[in-house]
Amino acid sequence: MRIERIPLREGRDDVTLTTYVLDDSAEMLDGAARPAVLILPGGGYLSCSDREGEPIAMAFASLGYHAFVLRYSVYGDVDFTRPMEPRERSQFPNPLVDVGLGMREIHDRASEWRVDTDRIAVCGFSAGGHNAAMYATNWDKPVITDVAGKGLRPAALIAGYALTDHVDALERGEELGEMERALRRAVAVAYLGSAEPAQEALVAASPALVADASTPPTFLWATGGDPLVPARNSLRLAERLADVGVPCEVHVYEQGRHGLSLATQATAGSRGDIEPRAADWFRQAAAWLETRFAIDVPELPAWERAGA
Amino acid sequence: MRIERIPLREGRDDVTLTTYVLDDSAEMLDGAARPAVLILPGGGYLSCSDREGEPIAMAFASLGYHAFVLRYSVYGDVDFTRPMEPRERSQFPNPLVDVGLGMREIHDRASEWRVDTDRIAVCGFSAGGHNAAMYATNWDKPVITDVAGKGLRPAALIAGYALTDHVDALERGEELGEMERALRRAVAVAYLGSAEPAQEALVAASPALVADASTPPTFLWATGGDPLVPARNSLRLAERLADVGVPCEVHVYEQGRHGLSLATQATAGSRGDIEPRAADWFRQAAAWLETRFAIDVPELPAWERAGA
Repeated sequence: MRIERIPLREGRDDVTLTTYVLDDSAEMLDGAARPAVLILPGGGYLSCSDREGEPIAMAFASLGYHAFVLRYSVYGDVDFTRPMEPRERSQFPNPLVDVGLGMREIHDRASEWRVDTDRIAVCGFSAGGHNAAMYATNWDKPVITDVAGKGLRPAALIAGYALTDHVDALERGEELGEMERALRRAVAVAYLGSAEPAQEALVAASPALVADASTPPTFLWATGGDPLVPARNSLRLAERLADVGVPCEVHVYEQGRHGLSLATQATAGSRGDIEPRAADWFRQAAAWLETRFAIDVPELPAWERAGA
Repeated sequence: MRIERIPLREGRDDVTLTTYVLDDSAEMLDGAARPAVLILPGGGYLSCSDREGEPIAMAFASLGYHAFVLRYSVYGDVDFTRPMEPRERSQFPNPLVDVGLGMREIHDRASEWRVDTDRIAVCGFSAGGHNAAMYATNWDKPVITDVAGKGLRPAALIAGYALTDHVDALERGEELGEMERALRRAVAVAYLGSAEPAQEALVAASPALVADASTPPTFLWATGGDPLVPARNSLRLAERLADVGVPCEVHVYEQGRHGLSLATQATAGSRGDIEPRAADWFRQAAAWLETRFAIDVPELPAWERAGA
């Protein structure tokens, strides 16, 4: 396995692509390219969570896919006791453009890493799921192509407990608890530069409102017990995708709080992050992905091919 | 993740321990040690198969365990058109002592790598499964401790389609096909120095005949369609372990050839290596291992612990 942490923005060390490139072997694919998954951790555009980075890379690598973890532009530490000033760095479209830069890097080095560029999925969680969904719905739009160059279509989107509809979220903000409201405000300032963004900005940042037929096939999952980003976000994006004719699979598990990641001991920060029913999501995602990302395993073993 | 390839024998580059040490994070275990799995690929003591190395490390790493792949002493290329001369290197007890050296290295660097040395499993396949079972039944015997120092008990043994009973194998050799017989002879020359080893040597190299109460809890799996190392090898070891009072779990899947590794696309060298029923073994092994290797996940999240 080849691990490399690659800075994507000149003079900055916070936006990086970490590679988890599987070793090649004559006994296996013998130089053939593999599909890959680009992973975007969550953290409310305030940070990038370790719980949704390397452990997710391990999970996809265990399926035979190369994995990459993108640490995109985020706000940084927030002092919740003071008014929060907007910072340029974490604001739209910067974190989104970072995804484009990450995809560009993978494409540029695809032959060295043996990546099948026709089969790269983006997979994110929470704000990372939002960022992944934003990329999936904007990959061919000027907001990305003006900076990152030619549009690079992801072959699939996988998003867990992602915020997908800012307009709906604002309308229903009353239902949130105090902590959830404070976090939501912080995310809005970090990503949209204001706790009360303009309607136009809210719509542009809502994959559930802008997805179109160019959005790739999508896998969504969420939990019924998530007060911060209710499962309705996943449902609304699924509804939109159905409307525009994009294949979409959705799994909403009844139990489970926000931020479960794999929902197993591998990603748990505390006991409540272990949720055996919700942990089913990764098996479902793996099976779904394999319908599109099946590895091109040779018909005959290497020694029989050599003998033929 | 920290990848490092560490030579274990002075002046040789063929016996190595490759680390797959998971990154630490304040969001997860915050410096606490994790259980680990030491992986021994198969290859008939003639080679170490890539299909049973890194991909297995990825599978265990995806469960939150550190993983290590040991490449032990093997014979090297065989020319099946000529009589095969014994070589010192791959002969008993050298590959077995290598396991002791690997365990020693993990123990020596446990605090740096944050390994819970009370919870290190050995996991092998085919000849690697034999070597792992040999270690599990000999870890406290002079054959290892004379060279590798103080006996280091593995907390668990996991072995797939492992040869465990050389005496039985020899008695039933007649049932094999021509290719299987040639391979069996090669393995005997490689590991025991002769195609017709002495009875004493056969017994000493048979975990199913020598396992005792000091052998750790064991998980075995095999496939009914394996002509090279029939499933009876796993059954006989399981029977012995029951006799000496060691907990043992066994799964024999009806279909599947020899050398399936994960039995998924992640380890397939050709289509016949994909066997969905047999691929169940890793889920079973993971669940079994978790009963002993459950990660010590904190009760409360880091931010609540800090606030307390």
